[in-house]
Amino acid sequence: MTLDSQTPDAVSGDETGARLYFEDLAVGWRVTTGTLTLDAEAIRRFAAEFDPQPFHLDAAAAEKSFFGGLVASGWHTAALTMRLLVTSGLPIAGGVIGAGGEVAWPRPTYPGDTLTAVCEVIAAKPSRSRSDRGMVTVRSETLNQKGEVVQVMTARLVVPRRPA
Amino acid sequence: MTLDSQTPDAVSGDETGARLYFEDLAVGWRVTTGTLTLDAEAIRRFAAEFDPQPFHLDAAAAEKSFFGGLVASGWHTAALTMRLLVTSGLPIAGGVIGAGGEVAWPRPTYPGDTLTAVCEVIAAKPSRSRSDRGMVTVRSETLNQKGEVVQVMTARLVVPRRPA
Repeated sequence: MTLDSQTPDAVSGDETGARLYFEDLAVGWRVTTGTLTLDAEAIRRFAAEFDPQPFHLDAAAAEKSFFGGLVASGWHTAALTMRLLVTSGLPIAGGVIGAGGEVAWPRPTYPGDTLTAVCEVIAAKPSRSRSDRGMVTVRSETLNQKGEVVQVMTARLVVPRRPA
Repeated sequence: MTLDSQTPDAVSGDETGARLYFEDLAVGWRVTTGTLTLDAEAIRRFAAEFDPQPFHLDAAAAEKSFFGGLVASGWHTAALTMRLLVTSGLPIAGGVIGAGGEVAWPRPTYPGDTLTAVCEVIAAKPSRSRSDRGMVTVRSETLNQKGEVVQVMTARLVVPRRPA
């Protein structure tokens, strides 16, 4: 995996810089993340640990598979999208904390693809039971270098309210 | 990560042994996977690459966070669940190929947790456009060693029909 953009290696809740609270994330708020590029070796390494199937591990075997060539595990695409969101898209105070959501992979991620994510807030509701937080629903599209959508995710995030 | 069960390192579509086709995966079909255990180092390693947030990287910082201690990234739990399904739960002919689905993490995965997944087919429909395949919806619950649910996933899988 190559990071093309200036994405920090880690995000600290204590560091200075823009931190987003519930009040900042109104419906329609949008952001485009940085980019990253993944290669065949990264695809194989992830697959060996988490999704050991021939079409993620071996180019020759992949040619004879459903996909017709080596492709990344969908969970690898999801994990890389999370990296983009955490390091360059959603500097939420307290962190990017997901309760769950929906994910779809309309087409595969291939070796050499450069990914970016475009996110939009599609719902935001204060918590009924906890006055210090809200739930924000973010829809993110992960695009390859051709602008094709490789993942659509709708995630429910727990977001703190701005302290009074 | 420690594999507690006899899970192969890779699954080959060519190997002998039970291979499941669409016709085998009727609604109500159930399986329980093997188990695996993850430790703090595996949690930190995954997080450094894909979800670099303090509550996944540093025990001291995690104590002051939303979670109150070091927890695995939800995407790490998802990836580990995929490993369980691929290596010991769903020997589908042609592989475990997901088009997408829903995922929720009702509680975190902690260092030292031992995970297993219980899967059930909740829907199965032949493809309208392709006579050689069907779509099978599998609901999987990922449980920790206390039997608590750490992930619920409902995934739509592309499954080949048994050759005539």
